[in-house]
Amino acid sequence: MRLIGYLVGGTRHIGAVDGDKVTPLGTVADFYRNPDAARRAERGGELLALGDLEQVPPVPETSRIFCVGINYHSHADESKSVAGLDLPKFPMIFGRWESTLVVDGTEVPVPPTEKGLDWEVELAAVIGETVWAAQEETALQHVLGYTAFNDLSARRKQIETPQFTLGKNADRSGPIGPAIVTTDELPDPSGLRVQTRVNGETVQDGNTRDLIHSVGKIIAYITDTVTLRPGDVIATGTPGGVGVGMNPQRFLTAGDVVEVEVEKIGVLRNPIVSREQLRS
Amino acid sequence: MRLIGYLVGGTRHIGAVDGDKVTPLGTVADFYRNPDAARRAERGGELLALGDLEQVPPVPETSRIFCVGINYHSHADESKSVAGLDLPKFPMIFGRWESTLVVDGTEVPVPPTEKGLDWEVELAAVIGETVWAAQEETALQHVLGYTAFNDLSARRKQIETPQFTLGKNADRSGPIGPAIVTTDELPDPSGLRVQTRVNGETVQDGNTRDLIHSVGKIIAYITDTVTLRPGDVIATGTPGGVGVGMNPQRFLTAGDVVEVEVEKIGVLRNPIVSREQLRS
Repeated sequence: MRLIGYLVGGTRHIGAVDGDKVTPLGTVADFYRNPDAARRAERGGELLALGDLEQVPPVPETSRIFCVGINYHSHADESKSVAGLDLPKFPMIFGRWESTLVVDGTEVPVPPTEKGLDWEVELAAVIGETVWAAQEETALQHVLGYTAFNDLSARRKQIETPQFTLGKNADRSGPIGPAIVTTDELPDPSGLRVQTRVNGETVQDGNTRDLIHSVGKIIAYITDTVTLRPGDVIATGTPGGVGVGMNPQRFLTAGDVVEVEVEKIGVLRNPIVSREQLRS
Repeated sequence: MRLIGYLVGGTRHIGAVDGDKVTPLGTVADFYRNPDAARRAERGGELLALGDLEQVPPVPETSRIFCVGINYHSHADESKSVAGLDLPKFPMIFGRWESTLVVDGTEVPVPPTEKGLDWEVELAAVIGETVWAAQEETALQHVLGYTAFNDLSARRKQIETPQFTLGKNADRSGPIGPAIVTTDELPDPSGLRVQTRVNGETVQDGNTRDLIHSVGKIIAYITDTVTLRPGDVIATGTPGGVGVGMNPQRFLTAGDVVEVEVEKIGVLRNPIVSREQLRS
């Protein structure tokens, strides 16, 4: 099942997409009270046309986005050389607020104080139930599904102090989707090719088999302190090939189009605009 | 006006408290669409008894909590000696999710992997309108009011990697309140005494006049990258005297009662419990 979010009268709804048709599954709020039951329930009624929908992220507005920093060796090398960041022994988690999430196609503005934005393709896991004290070995049973994520980064703000938070929460800087692929269709998050293209040119090309800390380990590490809730998102980190690590450095500026792709999930394509060009 | 939050049929409402009576001001969601208009609107109807209400944080569940690390020189000294953290040149912002906020009186559990929790009294500002590109000199005009905050910290998790996020988002670890005092009553956030007591013994005793980065500067620093929204919270950092800086180190464990007090705002008193003692 491939899940997307869309608005009905200002309220987030969720549906299962098949080609250009969408089966409505109710409001996002209701769905995430018990995702497992909600997606198995019998559905009658009319199918919607995908093209008619105003899409939104298919998670609650109260979701937390747990992002893992430096989780591929290829990115660890460039992070060390650019910012002096060492390979952490444990999953290094920073937070995004859900407010930064946008869908495929949304224009993303460059903050005026930045030279540009940097790309980061990532596999993301969406949590399907309340989780406390998970065990690494069985943690994937708590995952509803997987999606693609572009952890667009305002590098100046990110490293101006030791805490990444502001540089990882620029307005609209978290493209997610194009759908959540549920675990019945995609049970194994390892071995997925992840790529970024800028104006058609491939700049990142990695594979989730190279994650330093697995999805299960990350969930276990979070849940000895923070209870995960249905709809929370875990962005698993990015492979090498980000713009800040290039020589000369390269950033996304107005007029660029950035695409991230995760195998078996799909492509997110987002135009970059200046702050002035931003249509509210 | 002193604002508190409370539940009506599972939905967050907000009211103005005066002694033991509360004037209802509608749902939190409606109020924060336009706080300035909402609190000036004429109110009829019955007053509620404060003691009858199930209180919740007086902000939307989609609020973001922007916390400033190392924002008093007295705390900078102990942070350097304990964790090797240097004084940041800019406001060092880390994030909390709203899910961690609790009210006065709520039991706070110690994560089982920690020796205990550490206290951090803070003045917090609650944003009253949408803010982008604020100027430091005029930024306070965007503030709805001020409240007290206890930035309870799981120190092991906080410094196990360079990112503070998990250690600052332990379940229930963000007592806030006992009310938001609006800026008509409290226009100036400087010069407020802030204190922490553990089982009645004073352990922190500072004053917001010693903030390194002012509330206005923090708002300006955030909003060149992130648009602030009504109901967002800025926790301005803690003075010296935290437990991790003591010799020997001291942490809150089950049976302790921690109180933080901010002058002109009030006291937050929260019992510490073990995870096993936690009543859901």
